[in-house]
Amino acid sequence: MKKVYLDNAATTPMFSEVVETMAKSLGNIFGNPSSTHSFGRSAKAVIENARKSIAKLLVCSTSELVFTSGGTEADNLILKNAVYNLNVTHIITSKLEHHAVLHTVAFLETKGIQISYVDVKDNGTIDYDHLEELLKSTTQKTLISLMHVNNEIGTILEVKKVVCLKKQYNALFHSDTVQSVGHFDINLNELGIDFITAAAHKFHGPKGVGFAFFRKGTGIYPEILGGEQERGTRAGTENTAAIVGMEKALSLSLGNLESDIVYLKDLKNYFINQLKTHIVSVKFNGVSNNLTKSTHTIVSVQFAKELPMLLFQLDLKGIAVSGGSACQSGSHKGSHVLQSFLKTEEQIHTSVRFSFSKLTVKDEVDYAIEQLKYLVL
Amino acid sequence: MKKVYLDNAATTPMFSEVVETMAKSLGNIFGNPSSTHSFGRSAKAVIENARKSIAKLLVCSTSELVFTSGGTEADNLILKNAVYNLNVTHIITSKLEHHAVLHTVAFLETKGIQISYVDVKDNGTIDYDHLEELLKSTTQKTLISLMHVNNEIGTILEVKKVVCLKKQYNALFHSDTVQSVGHFDINLNELGIDFITAAAHKFHGPKGVGFAFFRKGTGIYPEILGGEQERGTRAGTENTAAIVGMEKALSLSLGNLESDIVYLKDLKNYFINQLKTHIVSVKFNGVSNNLTKSTHTIVSVQFAKELPMLLFQLDLKGIAVSGGSACQSGSHKGSHVLQSFLKTEEQIHTSVRFSFSKLTVKDEVDYAIEQLKYLVL
Repeated sequence: MKKVYLDNAATTPMFSEVVETMAKSLGNIFGNPSSTHSFGRSAKAVIENARKSIAKLLVCSTSELVFTSGGTEADNLILKNAVYNLNVTHIITSKLEHHAVLHTVAFLETKGIQISYVDVKDNGTIDYDHLEELLKSTTQKTLISLMHVNNEIGTILEVKKVVCLKKQYNALFHSDTVQSVGHFDINLNELGIDFITAAAHKFHGPKGVGFAFFRKGTGIYPEILGGEQERGTRAGTENTAAIVGMEKALSLSLGNLESDIVYLKDLKNYFINQLKTHIVSVKFNGVSNNLTKSTHTIVSVQFAKELPMLLFQLDLKGIAVSGGSACQSGSHKGSHVLQSFLKTEEQIHTSVRFSFSKLTVKDEVDYAIEQLKYLVL
Repeated sequence: MKKVYLDNAATTPMFSEVVETMAKSLGNIFGNPSSTHSFGRSAKAVIENARKSIAKLLVCSTSELVFTSGGTEADNLILKNAVYNLNVTHIITSKLEHHAVLHTVAFLETKGIQISYVDVKDNGTIDYDHLEELLKSTTQKTLISLMHVNNEIGTILEVKKVVCLKKQYNALFHSDTVQSVGHFDINLNELGIDFITAAAHKFHGPKGVGFAFFRKGTGIYPEILGGEQERGTRAGTENTAAIVGMEKALSLSLGNLESDIVYLKDLKNYFINQLKTHIVSVKFNGVSNNLTKSTHTIVSVQFAKELPMLLFQLDLKGIAVSGGSACQSGSHKGSHVLQSFLKTEEQIHTSVRFSFSKLTVKDEVDYAIEQLKYLVL
């Protein structure tokens, strides 16, 4: 059966070069990076070379990168560090965030931390005026945590605007960049964000590895204790092959970024137009049909059909898409992101996310449209 | 140059079958296990099959296993869960433990938890009478945390004795089994331990993956928040390929365990006798020359030569061994394990750990002896 994978915001297929690189590393570079003998030094060297390359790609310092087991661990590390180590007593975030942020701030709230949620507008973007009001009205040490690219509806945060505000009101700024690292040109030196997170499997790398960026001078308090790895910020034997794989994936993802973005914008635009042409009742969630305000990889739509059946029927045709995020599919709950700005349950339950990667081809999009024509009408 | 790896307690070379299995999984089974479509279900299925197989090998229930990013994370999860979720206010442990335990209990001590250290005898074994005294004299809810096989000197804990005591005094019992899973026959159903930990890279599997065992009914409070993975006990997209690799490695490690142990005991015995014959000044740390009380994989000795130079010279000859543990090599501190029972600094600084695996061959041991003869005498 034909298989069409249009759920790249959940996870991406690995680049074959990354699989090859990892297989070599798994077989050959097995030493414990903390060992001082040649086997250990080889492992340490490839890890530090990967760190150098990633730092160069993101324009930051190697000492600002902490390798973790993924984006969720990285978000946890940053948020808890802000509270336990950097004396943050107030976190401003939004209901649009990933659960890695929302569940962690909910936990921190039980420890006495004040959590404020920025208003979300009807179009699924945050209300920047309200963000400023929240910053203006607090005297507490505050961390802003707002994701760069929303994983369900694709909205792009106006990062520069938030950085201006964070500077003006002397706050810290964390951005969950799990959906944007590898897909956008991120220059950490220029941007002025204090903390970001990444998961390699979102840019054609392996699962089980990611990183947290901590701007120099902010200090890091480890969550996982028991060793001096990652300069004492994250104990546990380093995942050498996965780190090497992540570097390879990021390097390949950013290698032809400009032309890849052009390609994906064209593909997204084509898909949107095909949807409009063949399924006249289609509605787009938030700004996901806006090629500037929404990422080139995600389109979130409402169909005039209840979701569980549609997802099931698409799956039978070999087409993989998602209702909310993958993390929520497993928990069988409605999308909290859609709930935060859509008016009715029906709108939420008829919403589908299509997400592309540079490996997606027009033929796959055509096949999806072909099936949708029959299933939705 | 000839390369001889005798540092298997730090990490083990991967079985080639595990590398092959993982490479296939990385390339083919890329779906997010939380996705409900076919790509996601395939990933979920291989993870749950791996869990079933590991549960069968260790004679426990699948619901008792939580996959983590390694042994250190698993130790952290168990110890913090005991305090934050199971109302433990007192932890009995020993100075012989891995830093994953020692640093975590030190952290918990700052939160008001009482930590008691069992006395260590001159031979590097714990004082079981003192353990009983500690248990007898407390009225607090107590967790015992004692490692099964010591990673530096190889001492095997008398697990059954500790289980008897924990039952008698109604305590909980965690054993860091990172050095014994895959090397010993562990029947969790029979043993009566409440919590154990494992790291796949200690039994020829990949780095970056391990597991925690929680006996049914003990409850688990997640440390990494933000998703329903691992039944809500550990958020973050599952590391599918690594989990599959871990299962393969454990399965291969336990497949011929009895004969492998016979082989390794013979090899260890041969090595000990060769050392005694050719380096008459050699002394053995703790009980590491006892084939019953010490694991078949580790020999810890003292030579009449300062360590840094000897390790360096062995490394130049292609022989990888260790002073303390790998985790400590990186931090350039003396071994806390050796410090806990050796009398003099000199004894500590002349100690070397040799550690074997089923892949180690007699020829490699002979080569090491040959070089040691010249370097130590």
